[in-house]
Amino acid sequence: MKDLQDYEVGYDIPALPGMDEADIQTPALVLDLDALERNIKKMGDYARAHGMRHRVHGKMHKSVDVAKLQEKLGGAVGVCCQKVSEAEVFARGGIKDILVSNQVRDPLKLDRLAQLPKLGARTIVCVDDIANVEELSQAAQKHGTEIEILVEIDCGAGRCGVTTTEDVVAIAKAAQAAPNLKFTGIQAYQGAMQHLDSYEDREAKLDTAIAQVKDAVDGLKAEGIDCELVSGGGTGSYYFESNSGVYNELQCGSYAFMDADYGRILDKDGKRIDQGEWENAFFILTSVMSHAKADKAIVDAGLKAQSVDSGLPVVYGRTDVKYIKCSDEHGVVEDPDGVLKVGDKLRLVPGHCDPTANVHDWYVGVRNGKVETLWPVSARGKAF
Amino acid sequence: MKDLQDYEVGYDIPALPGMDEADIQTPALVLDLDALERNIKKMGDYARAHGMRHRVHGKMHKSVDVAKLQEKLGGAVGVCCQKVSEAEVFARGGIKDILVSNQVRDPLKLDRLAQLPKLGARTIVCVDDIANVEELSQAAQKHGTEIEILVEIDCGAGRCGVTTTEDVVAIAKAAQAAPNLKFTGIQAYQGAMQHLDSYEDREAKLDTAIAQVKDAVDGLKAEGIDCELVSGGGTGSYYFESNSGVYNELQCGSYAFMDADYGRILDKDGKRIDQGEWENAFFILTSVMSHAKADKAIVDAGLKAQSVDSGLPVVYGRTDVKYIKCSDEHGVVEDPDGVLKVGDKLRLVPGHCDPTANVHDWYVGVRNGKVETLWPVSARGKAF
Repeated sequence: MKDLQDYEVGYDIPALPGMDEADIQTPALVLDLDALERNIKKMGDYARAHGMRHRVHGKMHKSVDVAKLQEKLGGAVGVCCQKVSEAEVFARGGIKDILVSNQVRDPLKLDRLAQLPKLGARTIVCVDDIANVEELSQAAQKHGTEIEILVEIDCGAGRCGVTTTEDVVAIAKAAQAAPNLKFTGIQAYQGAMQHLDSYEDREAKLDTAIAQVKDAVDGLKAEGIDCELVSGGGTGSYYFESNSGVYNELQCGSYAFMDADYGRILDKDGKRIDQGEWENAFFILTSVMSHAKADKAIVDAGLKAQSVDSGLPVVYGRTDVKYIKCSDEHGVVEDPDGVLKVGDKLRLVPGHCDPTANVHDWYVGVRNGKVETLWPVSARGKAF
Repeated sequence: MKDLQDYEVGYDIPALPGMDEADIQTPALVLDLDALERNIKKMGDYARAHGMRHRVHGKMHKSVDVAKLQEKLGGAVGVCCQKVSEAEVFARGGIKDILVSNQVRDPLKLDRLAQLPKLGARTIVCVDDIANVEELSQAAQKHGTEIEILVEIDCGAGRCGVTTTEDVVAIAKAAQAAPNLKFTGIQAYQGAMQHLDSYEDREAKLDTAIAQVKDAVDGLKAEGIDCELVSGGGTGSYYFESNSGVYNELQCGSYAFMDADYGRILDKDGKRIDQGEWENAFFILTSVMSHAKADKAIVDAGLKAQSVDSGLPVVYGRTDVKYIKCSDEHGVVEDPDGVLKVGDKLRLVPGHCDPTANVHDWYVGVRNGKVETLWPVSARGKAF
């Protein structure tokens, strides 16, 4: 990796350490380091107090630096991620325990996955098809490595995963029997409920999921098969998994950064989770570049600086102006009282942190108005 | 730039020239080179036949290679783009006539813009605020270069741009008087109407825009000021600008690739523009990675492989399966008859080409089922 001084500010990188926040080239991703550290410590303390391992979701931030901070300050045991190429970035960056929480079926991807242990990483992958067991075993045998298997249960997300205990047991047995594989447990992440506003609605969905996972764990036990890991849980549900008596590993990601869509969900007291449970630590810094119409400011963060799949960004800490429209390179900010002027900077809380991080090359870490650090979005674009 | 052979397939790059299309690592952007070349030639022929310059919109593809193909096969005069950092990529790549079709106000960006002519590129920028004239002049004087000015008119898009002929004239005069600046003409792109389905609705919006631009051109002429360039027009409107008698330069971008959202708009005979006027040349190649539920295939292209701001992608050439849901790394494809199996590849036509190209590092150019070339998405992430 090049030295930061070798990059051109405004072309390669948005800032250099030591600069004022006001001089960051926009649009740029800004991390409030104090808030980030508090979020990470808080979740780490929670997991420890509840006897849960916390395998942080690296697909959210795609950053080796953030993952290492989560290990250091939050006691994270390692990462999960969704793609083999992402896993390679984390392994090359020194993360020692990696779960690809997804299916790997392509021959080249299987071959690359089987080489991850050679980089020093415990390598775990999800399986939802018994035919995949033989593919993984062959790849691991070829490279003389061991791949660990979590059978993925679809507990409501409606994507990958088997739906019956019978299938879980069959895949687990096949994995136990296959050379160079180890059956390690169950993956059961209920992705579809994380963003339901109501705590009670989320709890009801998790009750169903937990019952399904318990049935699978019992079914395995009846066959003499133990689960070392029962892994799942997100920012909208981790307290349910932690108190389930069956899960022993969390996979939260968004808690560290927060975003506008997650922020809107409510805790059990009916309070937004970004108003106490977690802090906004992740922003798009944007500048006003045109104000030719009295009541509208045009800012420089559009679709190339964020994903709007979960709604428009929210202007942080302001009620007088509102981001109302997003096109490729422009955002329209309603400014009824004309309080903004060209050059003004706003912090936007993106609708959805994961795909927003994925369009940027750098995180700019700020503290007390100064740029403290730049971290590459190490696995940006690693979608293979 | 490294040699392609120095990259790792499945980590850095999705394929190597000579591979079968079936072996491309997914998700990946695939260009059908035959279709791309036909689109480029067709628009070039149209522009030539109508006496229009065609300044292709480089913000769509962000690729020096595609821009050069548009010069070679389509007679393009150069590019427009939206950001200074994008313009630098095109200038460094050898494009000689560049319009930043946007406002540049930040001090560092102004300074970088003023250095573009040193890279051999004619440098034009839009202005919608008379205060910007002095900023641009100072930057150009500092570097001993010339920056050309188009006054931007907001002719209906509701973003940047002035709305009165009086303002156009005032900025033009200021630009004429300012050292190291040249007044070159008018920018008037009606972005908001490009995606209206009905040809007549689009025509009505353009009639208004054209009247506004004519008024400005006449207002300038009354002051003895000529417009060398009157620039605008997109894939949903170029025939209106070409026949307006006032525009002399087009800025079409999406015609070259096509996408699902543009494809739905209708030509004057009521036919979709992707059914004759333009061909789909731009796809996300995706693989089925799970089919644990009989009626649903899960594919590997989600929000990290595309932008869904303008709707979900469409499975190309298939009516038996349908992409119905998109999460970070997964797409859910409805497969009622269970015709898909794990490993099958599908071509998706993305909802919106511009922000979809921006999340990928490479275009894989294919012809007759073989990978012919890889082109970097040269200005990917250049949002400054």
